Amino acid sequence: MSHIRGRFHKKADKSAAEYTASIPFDWRLYRHDIAGSIAHARMLAKQGIISAQDARIITDGLAAIGEEIEQGKFQFKPELEDIHMNIEARLIEKVGEVGGKLHTARSRNDQVALDLRLFAREAIAETLTRLKDFQRALITLAEANKDVVMPGYTHLQPAQPVLLAHHLLAYFEMLQRDISRFNGCQERTDVMPLGSGALAGVAYDIDRDFLARELGFSQISRNSLDAVSDRDFVTEYEAAASLCLMHLSRLAEEVVLWSSAEFDFIEIDEAYASGSSIMPQKKNPDVAELVRGKTGRVFGHLMALLTTMKGLPLAYNRDMQEDKEGFFDTVDTLLATLEVFAGMVRTLKVKRKSIEAAVKRGYILATDLADYLVKKGSPFRTAHDIVSRLVGYAAEKGKSFAELSLDEYRQFSPLFTEDVYSITIESSLSARDITGGTAPGQVEPAIATARKIVEESFREK
Amino acid sequence: MSHIRGRFHKKADKSAAEYTASIPFDWRLYRHDIAGSIAHARMLAKQGIISAQDARIITDGLAAIGEEIEQGKFQFKPELEDIHMNIEARLIEKVGEVGGKLHTARSRNDQVALDLRLFAREAIAETLTRLKDFQRALITLAEANKDVVMPGYTHLQPAQPVLLAHHLLAYFEMLQRDISRFNGCQERTDVMPLGSGALAGVAYDIDRDFLARELGFSQISRNSLDAVSDRDFVTEYEAAASLCLMHLSRLAEEVVLWSSAEFDFIEIDEAYASGSSIMPQKKNPDVAELVRGKTGRVFGHLMALLTTMKGLPLAYNRDMQEDKEGFFDTVDTLLATLEVFAGMVRTLKVKRKSIEAAVKRGYILATDLADYLVKKGSPFRTAHDIVSRLVGYAAEKGKSFAELSLDEYRQFSPLFTEDVYSITIESSLSARDITGGTAPGQVEPAIATARKIVEESFREK
Amino acid sequence: MSHIRGRFHKKADKSAAEYTASIPFDWRLYRHDIAGSIAHARMLAKQGIISAQDARIITDGLAAIGEEIEQGKFQFKPELEDIHMNIEARLIEKVGEVGGKLHTARSRNDQVALDLRLFAREAIAETLTRLKDFQRALITLAEANKDVVMPGYTHLQPAQPVLLAHHLLAYFEMLQRDISRFNGCQERTDVMPLGSGALAGVAYDIDRDFLARELGFSQISRNSLDAVSDRDFVTEYEAAASLCLMHLSRLAEEVVLWSSAEFDFIEIDEAYASGSSIMPQKKNPDVAELVRGKTGRVFGHLMALLTTMKGLPLAYNRDMQEDKEGFFDTVDTLLATLEVFAGMVRTLKVKRKSIEAAVKRGYILATDLADYLVKKGSPFRTAHDIVSRLVGYAAEKGKSFAELSLDEYRQFSPLFTEDVYSITIESSLSARDITGGTAPGQVEPAIATARKIVEESFREK
Amino acid sequence: MSHIRGRFHKKADKSAAEYTASIPFDWRLYRHDIAGSIAHARMLAKQGIISAQDARIITDGLAAIGEEIEQGKFQFKPELEDIHMNIEARLIEKVGEVGGKLHTARSRNDQVALDLRLFAREAIAETLTRLKDFQRALITLAEANKDVVMPGYTHLQPAQPVLLAHHLLAYFEMLQRDISRFNGCQERTDVMPLGSGALAGVAYDIDRDFLARELGFSQISRNSLDAVSDRDFVTEYEAAASLCLMHLSRLAEEVVLWSSAEFDFIEIDEAYASGSSIMPQKKNPDVAELVRGKTGRVFGHLMALLTTMKGLPLAYNRDMQEDKEGFFDTVDTLLATLEVFAGMVRTLKVKRKSIEAAVKRGYILATDLADYLVKKGSPFRTAHDIVSRLVGYAAEKGKSFAELSLDEYRQFSPLFTEDVYSITIESSLSARDITGGTAPGQVEPAIATARKIVEESFREK
Repeated sequence: MSHIRGRFHKKADKSAAEYTASIPFDWRLYRHDIAGSIAHARMLAKQGIISAQDARIITDGLAAIGEEIEQGKFQFKPELEDIHMNIEARLIEKVGEVGGKLHTARSRNDQVALDLRLFAREAIAETLTRLKDFQRALITLAEANKDVVMPGYTHLQPAQPVLLAHHLLAYFEMLQRDISRFNGCQERTDVMPLGSGALAGVAYDIDRDFLARELGFSQISRNSLDAVSDRDFVTEYEAAASLCLMHLSRLAEEVVLWSSAEFDFIEIDEAYASGSSIMPQKKNPDVAELVRGKTGRVFGHLMALLTTMKGLPLAYNRDMQEDKEGFFDTVDTLLATLEVFAGMVRTLKVKRKSIEAAVKRGYILATDLADYLVKKGSPFRTAHDIVSRLVGYAAEKGKSFAELSLDEYRQFSPLFTEDVYSITIESSLSARDITGGTAPGQVEPAIATARKIVEESFREK
Repeated sequence: MSHIRGRFHKKADKSAAEYTASIPFDWRLYRHDIAGSIAHARMLAKQGIISAQDARIITDGLAAIGEEIEQGKFQFKPELEDIHMNIEARLIEKVGEVGGKLHTARSRNDQVALDLRLFAREAIAETLTRLKDFQRALITLAEANKDVVMPGYTHLQPAQPVLLAHHLLAYFEMLQRDISRFNGCQERTDVMPLGSGALAGVAYDIDRDFLARELGFSQISRNSLDAVSDRDFVTEYEAAASLCLMHLSRLAEEVVLWSSAEFDFIEIDEAYASGSSIMPQKKNPDVAELVRGKTGRVFGHLMALLTTMKGLPLAYNRDMQEDKEGFFDTVDTLLATLEVFAGMVRTLKVKRKSIEAAVKRGYILATDLADYLVKKGSPFRTAHDIVSRLVGYAAEKGKSFAELSLDEYRQFSPLFTEDVYSITIESSLSARDITGGTAPGQVEPAIATARKIVEESFREK
Repeated sequence: MSHIRGRFHKKADKSAAEYTASIPFDWRLYRHDIAGSIAHARMLAKQGIISAQDARIITDGLAAIGEEIEQGKFQFKPELEDIHMNIEARLIEKVGEVGGKLHTARSRNDQVALDLRLFAREAIAETLTRLKDFQRALITLAEANKDVVMPGYTHLQPAQPVLLAHHLLAYFEMLQRDISRFNGCQERTDVMPLGSGALAGVAYDIDRDFLARELGFSQISRNSLDAVSDRDFVTEYEAAASLCLMHLSRLAEEVVLWSSAEFDFIEIDEAYASGSSIMPQKKNPDVAELVRGKTGRVFGHLMALLTTMKGLPLAYNRDMQEDKEGFFDTVDTLLATLEVFAGMVRTLKVKRKSIEAAVKRGYILATDLADYLVKKGSPFRTAHDIVSRLVGYAAEKGKSFAELSLDEYRQFSPLFTEDVYSITIESSLSARDITGGTAPGQVEPAIATARKIVEESFREK
Repeated sequence: MSHIRGRFHKKADKSAAEYTASIPFDWRLYRHDIAGSIAHARMLAKQGIISAQDARIITDGLAAIGEEIEQGKFQFKPELEDIHMNIEARLIEKVGEVGGKLHTARSRNDQVALDLRLFAREAIAETLTRLKDFQRALITLAEANKDVVMPGYTHLQPAQPVLLAHHLLAYFEMLQRDISRFNGCQERTDVMPLGSGALAGVAYDIDRDFLARELGFSQISRNSLDAVSDRDFVTEYEAAASLCLMHLSRLAEEVVLWSSAEFDFIEIDEAYASGSSIMPQKKNPDVAELVRGKTGRVFGHLMALLTTMKGLPLAYNRDMQEDKEGFFDTVDTLLATLEVFAGMVRTLKVKRKSIEAAVKRGYILATDLADYLVKKGSPFRTAHDIVSRLVGYAAEKGKSFAELSLDEYRQFSPLFTEDVYSITIESSLSARDITGGTAPGQVEPAIATARKIVEESFREK
């Protein structure tokens, strides 16, 4: 409940005051609020709306409040409801009635829109950095294991051999799209809303472009009603984060699978594993499990905000205060996940022998046999049928392809000749020598390209 | 990361330790954890698994730790990961190696399942109390305004006159279903999981029924794997809370509408309203807006948990740690909403004149005119058509029904006679004299019944 | 757009008419609509509101329309918007103006509420039957494999040995809770809304109890505004279905894992597997994957309906038309999933040798070693530490527990004596001889109890 | 279940076959599938993988099949599972074994990825067109009513006067961001996946760039595993659609409010309204209600797909088949909503008198009074307090600002002088003469700019 109770005669009900207070979470915006207020005061002075001296008193006061907060000396007062009123009240306490001039030509509605955009801009920038750092971790792991062959899976069944590095680069691509989405979100966040007032624009001759420059925005908002009612940038961050965590949850699932006793493809570093309270032998992939588990949390925040915004008439409604906690938690979750997961990727030990044993199991070269027949003239669909039957036969006999005699092969098609034995894991890989394919000759430059993309993007920043 | 690192040589990575720690939120389970441990220690002694003296040392130690926490003297250590390990470590610190006997015949997996059920049981009980209290507030408001007539709406268009009390009792019914759902949830929560161990049951001769009695449960779990993997009771609470908040959001929407300048049906007490930072005339229905807005948040928690649990193999997986924050927040949100919204309902001022002016607008008695024709022999569908055309005619002439002459009526049907003028708001209400209808003769006993249901249910508790 | 355009001069816009029409999906309610209308007509006659002859004409007409629809001879007309108007218009076409009497003392609002409850009642009953049938399939599989031991997992790491039957019974318990929830939903669905009219109750002396009896309901609704605005029963079905599919998705995940080459615990029957368009060797667990995948779909329907209902003022709003498609799809999805998944469970082949090889891997008996030390006097926490170090030592030496000498054991604790070698998979299982535990002596009666619960519940139905 | 059952001995179970079949919904991809296959066949011939003659037979056959489908002569066979197999089987039926060559160097996995991208590309293009058309409708309405003043609301309480045109342009801005998001989505969709094979790339010397050119893509995918596992473009469409429908739901809510008897700001054209089955006077805003209601449905589809994709290991899993129905429905819903809602906006009648009466109610000029005091030297916070008390006083006296005497004003501040009476609705509007503000001098060029943006974007297309 606003402490601004002007014409009201009663105090807010205590439980209502607690219910509506945002200071328990929006204190996090203090830096952004102070930065915005300092720019606003300077602009008011520049435009002659307040005096230069008043502006200096205000900006000095604000800077001092910033330090109080940093040093833990600031008393946040729940009865002052939110971070904006806490800071303004403290300002007036410190500098007197002149502090009351700060809110000229401004409303909490455009102020909170500004603060949240300043926060979002930083959050997106940090997200981009961590995404790229995660890509680096993937590339380094790919480089270090560039000749490791693993079973490629579809339906979690061994399908065709692939390079582990190729598999890891699939995640590089997903994150590259995430980066692209966060960049788009950043562009749409980079809009300065101050000057929109409560909803209709302010009745003062302010300089919005000056404000934008001071605060490092490249655009100003074009419609005041929209500017105070818009939380698209928050929702869009949450949607991009949901997609990103969905990607990370897939890799997390693979880490869990691969570190199981049954797959045994990797070993998680002890620094990222944990034990059990009663089972002394356990080494659990807790970090990966939590990455997977926290995905739901971020989906939930997205759904929450979409639902909250649905059907709200213009302009500001108090429902919109619900934007912040989910947003802060989404940012915190994504940043922490990227950091800790990158650390785990960096320290993963690939169990080459165990992976390579797995790739030899079963009839993973069946597609290659079919392709072999096609190259000898069979239509693909026919070749597929022949090899299907051949697999059935071999499985029944308990033989691998290599263990079948040429006669046995030829029972299924006369196109088989001695050179069928030259089909190997290596030949299978090499054959997929096409942009995007798993042939070593493709994957090596793909790693280099990925490396280049990341490093250039770090430099550009 | 568990501090139980037995055979590990490395410390947990700092960011990984933070990422996996639950103590920042699961400290809330300390009462339940201590209660569960005390019961467990007593049972171990009763079964001769530990000595009576050891049990006394342990239970005294636990009680003392409980006091330390209550008094804010307990040092929560993030490196001890969760509330369970924090308490156990402190116990051993206080009472020595004997404290290490507490974890006999128990695992964190069944321990956390127990603690969460104890918490949920309390939360559900408190939820039920507040639901009933909210019903009381509705009934009292209905009683105090039992003769106020308002326009009943469909599609937000005036449809037929209804009693405000009847309208309010619709919410009584919704909450009655909510109560029924939370009761079902309570039954399914009331199951004692201890003895399930990590997943397979424990290898000690423990007495699970004794534990259930000590802790006030009426059933014990029947399958250890299920007992440690089950979070249905949390999900079900969140689903029931989602439905309940959906109901409350509807009433909140009506409070917002009704307190608008355009409807002007009610006045929110100042203790539950707030002002504006720049518009001095504003009196905003913030509480109602936040009730509506927080609905999304709870939907989000439900979605988050469902998503997190989806596709997890048995038994415990670390993803499940994500159950708590959303659950705690759902409980807190629902309880606070019920409390503050009940307060607002109790202090609402109904603007009788303004409502009754509204009910007279337009052609709200058109259905009654059609029913009039039916009672004179017209098939309903025909009567509906006649009155539709009559409304069109009256609207064009700018006349109300009362202002039409009998001749004008009879242009549309010869069935109209003088008694058409006896159709009034009052006659319309009284005509709906059927169980569940809005006739005063129905609504009065309905209020009494509602009152009786609530008061009896309070007594039974 | 309603074809009921009474005083309107214009036709509905074509795209608007399509946008608002529900006949493309609500035709599925035709049986329920006709049943409801027949009961309504009989009641009107019984009360003398229409003549017995009119009632007979109407009910005969309705029965004939039912046959036309069953035989595919009925022309559904989109311009008549919904199933209710399609049937009423056809009735009038067939029997003349008397058909227009059917809608006396009724509104589409209470009619659609009735039809949907009739549909839901059937859907819940069928859901319950299929849930029990699925339980049967699980029990039968458990019985057939009651002595098969498998690794019990936590964090997808081998934790302790469990019986496969015990594992399967965990799902029995989950479904038992699902049954309990659907039963609760059925009780809250079993409420007859007719008589609520558009929102205020009807102005005719109708007999609601007669209607309830005719239509097999055990209660009548108590508030007309609530009765036409309530879709709780649909939402609750979707919530219960979400929980149920969450459970099934967990088993589906296990089927996918267990049928992987790496686990190799089971073989899916060919009738439930599929091949690949290009990889001739593939046998994919498509059904299990789709069970897992369709879980998201049902969560989505739940979220959709909650969102749609959020913040709607009373009474009926057209938004509520959105309840049906998601509900129908949820019912169809759950019923089909239960049927096809039960079939797959029934035909699963358990690969006993392969499972039993897995259970022998690693140090799955470590907890038993710790319990051994506890029983010799060590506090559990100390015992856990000793065995942790022992596991570290054994792993380094590449030895299993059985391969360690007694001297090696005693380097870690003097409590170890010759009887340490009597700790085996079998002893581990037997030791968990506690209600809910995995000891064969517990699991056998648990299977019998489960069987009894299911069979009795089938009989009761 | 795939009809490709190669080595299988059993037929698929009937219910399993139905459960897994996608042809009931993916038949919609037939055009895209045929276009993709024609391009593929041409490429195979160009590369010498099949002969030019075979390619011609195949492409002629495919074209003929396309016609069969268009003319409703094609027999879709559920047992052939999906659209791809239906078309391929028909091709072989028509042209013989040579048809079996089409699937050379291709898998269903990259084929379905291609088809879905082709569909998405079209859907996005059409979405963009309809978004712009909706913007046009808004601009036209704004232009036609450019001098209509309405109460601007926050918290649904009158806040400050705004131009209706300004209010409408807020939605123009929202849609402009939607356009920007769909453009970003289009870029990320515009990637050609063919050549990725099942997961590892194909073992043939194909020309992926040729395929991209033939099919109008500007990029080719860079990683085969990613290309077949990626449904980001679908998810992103659903996220952008969710945001867009959230915007439209806000306008829909306003249409419902504004057409209520209490607001009475607009009249919906009869072509977009509907009547009631029993209340002859009703004119309901069904289209707006359904726009609002369908928002939930699209949120649900987004949640469903995110949930389905969460935690899936690479590469293709059958769960991913669940991407289509929700996507198709999202596209259909958004396109239909944009079309019908634009029609409703175009035909809305603004009730100028009624709106302008509303703007005069209450103390909507209070902010202007505070600003007046600020301009006379008062700090804003002080001015706000003064006017708050003044409003309290006036409300108590039942006077409007205009009705207060100067003496009464001066009781609150000596800064008030005669010119306080020059504060009017008009002066309030004009004062907000700042970019983005509601002053007529700002709104007029804003309309022109909006018009220019839309028209240029239509030309560019």
